Amino acid sequence: MTKPIIGITVGDPSGVGPEISVKTLKNPEVLSSCLPVLYGDEYVLRRVLSIVRSDMPLAVIEDPIEAREGRINLLSSGVVEESYEFAKVQGKCGQAAFAYIKHAIEDALAKKIDAVVTGPIHKEALHEGGVNYSGHTEIFADLTGTKNYAMLLTGGGIRVIHVSTHVSLREACDRAKKERILAVIRLADDAAKGLGVPVPRIAVAGLNPHSGENGLFGDEEMKEISPAIEAARREGMDITGPVPPDTVFVKALKGDFDIVVAMYHDQGHIPLKLTDFMGGVNITVGLPIIRTSVDHGTAYGKAGKGTADEASMLAAVQSAVQFVKNKR
Amino acid sequence: MTKPIIGITVGDPSGVGPEISVKTLKNPEVLSSCLPVLYGDEYVLRRVLSIVRSDMPLAVIEDPIEAREGRINLLSSGVVEESYEFAKVQGKCGQAAFAYIKHAIEDALAKKIDAVVTGPIHKEALHEGGVNYSGHTEIFADLTGTKNYAMLLTGGGIRVIHVSTHVSLREACDRAKKERILAVIRLADDAAKGLGVPVPRIAVAGLNPHSGENGLFGDEEMKEISPAIEAARREGMDITGPVPPDTVFVKALKGDFDIVVAMYHDQGHIPLKLTDFMGGVNITVGLPIIRTSVDHGTAYGKAGKGTADEASMLAAVQSAVQFVKNKR
Repeated sequence: MTKPIIGITVGDPSGVGPEISVKTLKNPEVLSSCLPVLYGDEYVLRRVLSIVRSDMPLAVIEDPIEAREGRINLLSSGVVEESYEFAKVQGKCGQAAFAYIKHAIEDALAKKIDAVVTGPIHKEALHEGGVNYSGHTEIFADLTGTKNYAMLLTGGGIRVIHVSTHVSLREACDRAKKERILAVIRLADDAAKGLGVPVPRIAVAGLNPHSGENGLFGDEEMKEISPAIEAARREGMDITGPVPPDTVFVKALKGDFDIVVAMYHDQGHIPLKLTDFMGGVNITVGLPIIRTSVDHGTAYGKAGKGTADEASMLAAVQSAVQFVKNKR
Repeated sequence: MTKPIIGITVGDPSGVGPEISVKTLKNPEVLSSCLPVLYGDEYVLRRVLSIVRSDMPLAVIEDPIEAREGRINLLSSGVVEESYEFAKVQGKCGQAAFAYIKHAIEDALAKKIDAVVTGPIHKEALHEGGVNYSGHTEIFADLTGTKNYAMLLTGGGIRVIHVSTHVSLREACDRAKKERILAVIRLADDAAKGLGVPVPRIAVAGLNPHSGENGLFGDEEMKEISPAIEAARREGMDITGPVPPDTVFVKALKGDFDIVVAMYHDQGHIPLKLTDFMGGVNITVGLPIIRTSVDHGTAYGKAGKGTADEASMLAAVQSAVQFVKNKR
């Protein structure tokens, strides 16, 4: 079996993305499990290689098929060809970050690469560069024409997938509907299998405190969540819930569940960030291509210093490889 | 300075409360820092003493002033005078648990004891016994005539106080109003001082993901939370926020803040239970009397076996002692 080709978009040149991408390519486990291809700019990568004092050879290629072992294989966008500042919002950097992502998505859709791993981008830099997306997930959904997707976070021994993410808490309450919850449960089952769990034990969190205590405070559990759980059970899934939001993650951490379906952004993000602040992976589930990501931002405070921690990028590459193997 | 007299209500006889109360009285730190008085029933306590094989002398007293060192001082309600079952909802046990609480509150209001520490009660047992309260907090608020109070949890290095608790998530959004938030910030400042922090560094969490990103998803941060924070700052408090809900607890755990103001039940309970599931303390702030509590339930699964863990009760007594000392 040939090694999967993993496309890594290095993210905003002004942040830590290019540095952690290069550091990840030095990892022996990464090199033995896949053939990585970077989407970035030659100028950016050479600058970062000198900062981290690496003498790894860099080859600019035109197509992922030209990728070879023993060197950095780079698809260079040509957007950033001269000096830029670290730790600063720059429209040019936003445009470059977007170009890397667009190119990688095209190659993934054309099956030239097996998965896309994304480095951190900066929303304001995108906007200053005239790119009107609020983040990676929206770009991937739009450019692949996907409507039914969800954000999965893994880290610190927990996997959590979200019914809604970047909407107000009031709107999150409105979006906790049976149809969407069932769709996300299905995505959870599929994603956990992709991550190597043959029969995932799925927990579905409640929306309200104590899961509403039989309708005493909130009836979404009775009207929306339980019916979705019952439908999923009829489809043969191993599913538990609604589990009170403040105990479901304690149980997941103890090993009772393989994946938790969270009803809103912070219900899933609070426990995930608490158990694993820098080594987590963000996965967009439901796309026609495999996409994993670091779960942190551009970390301007650490950019350009050579001291950034590549743990999250490493974990993101490993998750992508795992997905590819389980999907083959 | 005389030792503070700490009243401990032993909770529902059918749960672990009486056992962990008795175990707590064996702790040398507890005995050196306070004079504990139990509110329970002689029958219940004698039964539990035999289960844990303790030969501590038990004295039934009529008034806390009779309490002496070197023995268990018990104010006996007389409600439970014959056999009852462990791990079972019984109306008689609910009535007894309520009688213990009522008596302790009366003694605290009459300044016969310095603080009340409560053992776990069972809501269904209360209801079966014809006691129509949903929990401790409501009983304390009602019997002391308090309107302006809040639930504070401590444990695992975090202190978190809640703007709302047992209401639906939709209603929690409605309750995140400037006036209430400011009131809870003041209670947070006062409570942290009571717990021994001279100048508390207070963090206020946002309500929406990313604190709403400047109104992009949710405007409660701009309309309600920030104005409350500014008002508190004008009152001289050391205050930060709104901090995104998924990072505020990571920062608190790192030591950046002494107390976090959470906007709703699970925002505070998820991180607290994850960092400290069994050793936490629940404190009702804003009452005219000091009240701390275990932060777990009756734990029926462990009742009557002699193996229950008293860590949370121990921590609750220590917090009560701390409060008394800082209020004197």
